[in-house]
Amino acid sequence: MRDPLLLTPGPLTTTLATKMAMLNDWGSWDSSFNALTASVCQRLVDLVDGGEDFVCVPLQGSGTFAVEAAIGTLLPRDGKLLVLANGAYGKRMARLTEVMGRAVSVLDFGETSPVDPVRVATRLAADPQITHVGVIHCETSTGILNPLEAIAEVVALAGRRLIIDAMSALGALPLSAREIAFDAVIASSNKCLEGVPGMGFVLVRQRSLALAQGNAHSLSLDLHDQWRYLQQTGQWRYTPPTHVVAALASALDQYQAEGGRPARFARYSSNCAALIEGLHGLGLRPFLPAAIQAPIIVTVQAPEHANWQFGEFYQRVKAQGVVLYPGKLTELETFRVGCIGAIGKAEIQMAVDAIARALTEMRIRA
Amino acid sequence: MRDPLLLTPGPLTTTLATKMAMLNDWGSWDSSFNALTASVCQRLVDLVDGGEDFVCVPLQGSGTFAVEAAIGTLLPRDGKLLVLANGAYGKRMARLTEVMGRAVSVLDFGETSPVDPVRVATRLAADPQITHVGVIHCETSTGILNPLEAIAEVVALAGRRLIIDAMSALGALPLSAREIAFDAVIASSNKCLEGVPGMGFVLVRQRSLALAQGNAHSLSLDLHDQWRYLQQTGQWRYTPPTHVVAALASALDQYQAEGGRPARFARYSSNCAALIEGLHGLGLRPFLPAAIQAPIIVTVQAPEHANWQFGEFYQRVKAQGVVLYPGKLTELETFRVGCIGAIGKAEIQMAVDAIARALTEMRIRA
Ligand SMILES: Cc1ncc(COP(=O)(O)O)c(C=O)c1O
Ligand SMILES: Cc1ncc(COP(=O)(O)O)c(C=O)c1O
Repeated sequence: MRDPLLLTPGPLTTTLATKMAMLNDWGSWDSSFNALTASVCQRLVDLVDGGEDFVCVPLQGSGTFAVEAAIGTLLPRDGKLLVLANGAYGKRMARLTEVMGRAVSVLDFGETSPVDPVRVATRLAADPQITHVGVIHCETSTGILNPLEAIAEVVALAGRRLIIDAMSALGALPLSAREIAFDAVIASSNKCLEGVPGMGFVLVRQRSLALAQGNAHSLSLDLHDQWRYLQQTGQWRYTPPTHVVAALASALDQYQAEGGRPARFARYSSNCAALIEGLHGLGLRPFLPAAIQAPIIVTVQAPEHANWQFGEFYQRVKAQGVVLYPGKLTELETFRVGCIGAIGKAEIQMAVDAIARALTEMRIRA
Repeated sequence: MRDPLLLTPGPLTTTLATKMAMLNDWGSWDSSFNALTASVCQRLVDLVDGGEDFVCVPLQGSGTFAVEAAIGTLLPRDGKLLVLANGAYGKRMARLTEVMGRAVSVLDFGETSPVDPVRVATRLAADPQITHVGVIHCETSTGILNPLEAIAEVVALAGRRLIIDAMSALGALPLSAREIAFDAVIASSNKCLEGVPGMGFVLVRQRSLALAQGNAHSLSLDLHDQWRYLQQTGQWRYTPPTHVVAALASALDQYQAEGGRPARFARYSSNCAALIEGLHGLGLRPFLPAAIQAPIIVTVQAPEHANWQFGEFYQRVKAQGVVLYPGKLTELETFRVGCIGAIGKAEIQMAVDAIARALTEMRIRA
């Protein structure tokens, strides 16, 4: 049987070329693999116009590991992080900072509003202990797009350092070091870059990283140590996920061939528009207003119908070869449909058709 | 060009079947992937005859991440770890424990001797603060086999808990919960199980893990949290390296088909014997005496010759399609040759031939 279409926030549907790049074995100590790492890192720095000021530090593990590593390394032991939260990933950033024993405070915007830069400015003025601010670019738990430019401006004006979790945005949404001031951008292999899961990375301001020796609470998650070793040897500190790195290198080749960020943004935007239009036709409504909807993942309000049951709906859609994603809202029954991955309008149409058929089978829709 | 033969301690040469298992995309939330995870975990528990007493907690990242997670989770905040060290990986275990801010003390046996259980017993008697003991099964930096049974006995007699880093041994060397008392065994996908790199796992005594809530210094590396979530949902806590897990599942199928641990041990032993015999024929001597040489990786003394230069030697061997590994001894010039991976005597012979030719080219050997 064919693999199902993954309309999820990642791991997602990748091209066969990307997966076939995993059909080789690489020696992790070997110069060929070092060259692969260097080329991937350079291309990732270029994604944010990082120039000479930024370095890429790749890290084994999932995206959360990279978020924890970035904060644990960049936040001094006596620093304090303000997390701008409007969903599950903001909350997780706060929680992992707390677990590592650093001072953290949360500015909570609920689950339905983007971060408000005015409130951020007020909080920063009121709490001089805050040294760093953490924000989620696209809050994947709803799909909300946060106003990064305006946030970065108030953070810079207040003289604090910005750490951006751009896990589900990098490579598709605009984000340039020439336009926005930040110390670190965190992402992973398996979202808008369309690689396979198994590595995160942090694009970090070299000057800040150089000052971060000894901050980390964990050897494995010490980005400074990882960076120094990479600089000195060209190698990852511990065994790298060689096949995952090779897949990402291939995915980045394909990214370039497609036309880079503008082309990817355009494809995802067109996927998102087609999806919302198709859902509208079925009487389903996206949870977010269009103005704050990132073209990454769409949260859909579940039909208000006695027959609605997410588990059954999911299975019926899956039986037609399409994998959706559960909702992550605490107060409202929703499900999510991803717009990202190696998919286009045809796949979105298949998903809409499968959703329609499932709703009919469940007698929710005539 | 063909991939080079990797005669390294991992990532190593895997079969094409294992790599082809990565040609599918899996939804990380989906029941098909949950079933894959459950099956892999069950088979890993079975490797150590873990029965009902042990659970497998898989973890994203490299093996070091899993070592850090095991210690960070199992060692109480006011516990103390005694590390039995005779090489780089013992030292790393001590260092990561120190970085996380726990009490640690090291019993150092140098680089050329196995751990001596009598000295362990003496130290445990002298220091009642020690709650846990950490040991490396096969110290990959030299290839030394540590006497696990005798060590486990003195640790159990002294009423302490044993944590075993069996990264480069599990699946090949005997290690059974029926014969040895331990709380945790740590390993990874990409060594004797012949999967690809990208995940570690800990086989941990359920009773000890259940008591470990709140110990961890890190959210990402909290094994207790990872375990609870897996129990409740069947899913990994954060995005799993889906393709790496699928490759490991295939590698475990092949492991079973080959005849399990005894067959793998026999193949590696035969590889190791053929390698040592071949090297002897070239006038090269293994660094370790046969009695403490694990059939995993062989440390070879570099020829005492003015023309010897590891970098050149490595490149000349690589040009013939064979990748070796540098030595890791601090006092003696050595190189290493792995016996593990999807290789047999034919590949060992190719390696010996390539080494012979390189030495001739370098005018070290006539
Ligand atoms: C914004 C954001 N942050 C963090 C994460 C966590 O990444 P991972 O699941 O790879 O640990 C995700 C995953 O979807 C995400 O979307
Ligand atoms: C005994 C032992 N422990 C730990 C490690 C570290 O594993 P990784 O490189 O996957 O972090 C290794 C790797 O070779 C090892 O052999």
